[in-house]
Amino acid sequence: MALIVQKYGGTSVGSAERIKNVARRVAKWHEAGHQVVVVVSAMSGETNRLIALAKEIQPQPDPRELDVVASTGEQVTIGLLSMALQALGHKARSYTGAQIAVHTDSAFTKARIESIDADKLKADLAQGIIPVVAGFQGVDAQGNITTLGRGGSDTSGVALAAALQADECQIYTDVDGVYTTDPRIVPEARRLDTITFEEMLEMASLGSKVLQIRSVEFAGKYKVRLRVLSSLTPWDLPLEQESRSGTLITFEEDENMEQAVVSGIAFARDEAKIIVVGVPDRPGIAYQILSAVGEANIEVDMILQNQSVAGFTDFTFTVGRGDYARALDILKSSVQAHIGAKEILGDPKVCKVSIVGMGMRSHAGVASKMFRTLSEEGINIQMISTSEIKVSVVIEEKYMELAVRSLHKAFDLEQSA
Amino acid sequence: MALIVQKYGGTSVGSAERIKNVARRVAKWHEAGHQVVVVVSAMSGETNRLIALAKEIQPQPDPRELDVVASTGEQVTIGLLSMALQALGHKARSYTGAQIAVHTDSAFTKARIESIDADKLKADLAQGIIPVVAGFQGVDAQGNITTLGRGGSDTSGVALAAALQADECQIYTDVDGVYTTDPRIVPEARRLDTITFEEMLEMASLGSKVLQIRSVEFAGKYKVRLRVLSSLTPWDLPLEQESRSGTLITFEEDENMEQAVVSGIAFARDEAKIIVVGVPDRPGIAYQILSAVGEANIEVDMILQNQSVAGFTDFTFTVGRGDYARALDILKSSVQAHIGAKEILGDPKVCKVSIVGMGMRSHAGVASKMFRTLSEEGINIQMISTSEIKVSVVIEEKYMELAVRSLHKAFDLEQSA
Repeated sequence: MALIVQKYGGTSVGSAERIKNVARRVAKWHEAGHQVVVVVSAMSGETNRLIALAKEIQPQPDPRELDVVASTGEQVTIGLLSMALQALGHKARSYTGAQIAVHTDSAFTKARIESIDADKLKADLAQGIIPVVAGFQGVDAQGNITTLGRGGSDTSGVALAAALQADECQIYTDVDGVYTTDPRIVPEARRLDTITFEEMLEMASLGSKVLQIRSVEFAGKYKVRLRVLSSLTPWDLPLEQESRSGTLITFEEDENMEQAVVSGIAFARDEAKIIVVGVPDRPGIAYQILSAVGEANIEVDMILQNQSVAGFTDFTFTVGRGDYARALDILKSSVQAHIGAKEILGDPKVCKVSIVGMGMRSHAGVASKMFRTLSEEGINIQMISTSEIKVSVVIEEKYMELAVRSLHKAFDLEQSA
Repeated sequence: MALIVQKYGGTSVGSAERIKNVARRVAKWHEAGHQVVVVVSAMSGETNRLIALAKEIQPQPDPRELDVVASTGEQVTIGLLSMALQALGHKARSYTGAQIAVHTDSAFTKARIESIDADKLKADLAQGIIPVVAGFQGVDAQGNITTLGRGGSDTSGVALAAALQADECQIYTDVDGVYTTDPRIVPEARRLDTITFEEMLEMASLGSKVLQIRSVEFAGKYKVRLRVLSSLTPWDLPLEQESRSGTLITFEEDENMEQAVVSGIAFARDEAKIIVVGVPDRPGIAYQILSAVGEANIEVDMILQNQSVAGFTDFTFTVGRGDYARALDILKSSVQAHIGAKEILGDPKVCKVSIVGMGMRSHAGVASKMFRTLSEEGINIQMISTSEIKVSVVIEEKYMELAVRSLHKAFDLEQSA
């Protein structure tokens, strides 16, 4: 008998019929003798509807009140799913974030979980009750309702699994796991049976949006065994099969398994590159450039600065394409003269491609194999950035698909025949 | 400076635009120097939508879970109204029933308020904040969300006014007060400036559905000054005028005011009458008849039993017309033989007309004036029932409008010219 936390997203609970199917799936696990705690999102579209209603009243609504309104979406789902489980003859009981309680800080609309009282859930489980908990929400020290921000239900699920010391946290979603790369670009992409947390973090932050990145960090911190699996399989899929499906995200390298050098290829479209040319190489320059951009709420991704030559250096960074024109304007109008840069150049049509893999740490030559592969395809590398388990390059956007496909092949990531 | 609790119903907050108008009205009172606590219902149609969703999952949903789902309607409104007040430059803060806390028993879907912590509200008021509280909902001793049943927001408003010892509880609704009778039947019906609680209770229970009857009982018990007024007047109606509009429900007879003998004419359509003829006059008979009907969840209204003659009596009662056939069937099939009644008769087409007034207690001849008026119109009285401040008669349904009009005239209730 295992203690399992299952999280179902908005699409999985998007209608009365789908909620009934989630109930059937949960019941299957419970009937097999497992203790199950369920975490749910709002029905798909509901959170957007509520936020639109709020903005109709006030274009920039007060965050505390926005959370009061937005948190009702999950509250509806917990009640409905509990009813559906009861209709199947199971004991079930719903809990809002405040009822559990999921304690958070007071950063409305983007609160962070601080602690969770697991006593009520444990008492319920001991009595054979299936607790159904509202994801995405919590309560601060003053009793105010808070929400965790978009995708926060994944974090709720992982945090509950940590508090309960659950055997596994299962995130049911509309994809069936984590792939070596996006199958829409590389049809031969392979689903990974396992991936390490470090790899998952790199993949998630690079655009493989299977899991909210905070939930992965949380799982890594509290050593929660995390599995991403599909809610689109038939609910009566044999348990033996379902329990091994999807992708397991592990927090330690499995010694018995041969570690792939590269686990996946991540990419990010719609990037733009800005180069501040001929900057005098003195302390504070990087800060002056980035603070001006940051104050305008523009997020900066990759940052590069080369060794200076003759007291001058070039400072390069990437931003989302939507922020390109604004960032360029800020630099030209209020930074360039101030820091004495010669020129501000840019390219709004670049992309980022990365190879990710734990095995990289112990294998030399991974980066050079990447560069050779791209070179053989005639793709020019504009920027390079590396971490322990990742190598990222910025290239012209039109080469993105070609780069991803050739790297996927070069590192032997295709499905075995 | 007065402390006022204002309650706005579902129609008043039925759209973003209407919520903004409620905010403007509340702001008007606040800007005039009053302390205001606002209680709101769910946006019109929302509670029905939520209950329908629940019944799609489970035709007879678990009451605890139904309350979790249904209570979200008011939670959305409190957030939206708080935002709208903030948009007007006022400090506002929303509270769910659990946050206040409105403590109730655990009778889900029909909970009763036991106590209210008014401390948070008082602290907010002292800081110039306008608290916006979710009506219809509370929290039980175990922290479960409860609801008070349909129309419960009126009760929430009155209970908060009692807890805060407010100067007045204002129930904004889509009628502009309590009338001497239904203006659709008697165009000359007059709005009452004041009505006593006792009269209001009789009027409410007799079909003048302006206020939920429990809220009136609550107001009477805690001596809350209660005013029913219209939310359909322009929001910028001068305060002086608005504060004297509608109908004030008083808990003590105003000594300075000449008490009208009869304050209003109430009526109930769609009644049916059942007569159990020739019942042996012995203890337990009334119980046996009514318990059989009650077990079938049929509500009985008026009950009459005459003095027995020669050991036999007739037992008469009224039920809603929709229950008539079923009630008759139950009596004939399982009660008649058992109690030895000679016959079960009935009439599915009757109605009830009542005159209500505190002045009746000290004025003789009110009932006889009623009977004479009906007699002059050729209306036969089938049943009579009286209380301290009310006389009710059951008559043939086709005479209802005629009876109401002639009584309204006979007791001088018309608008003064």
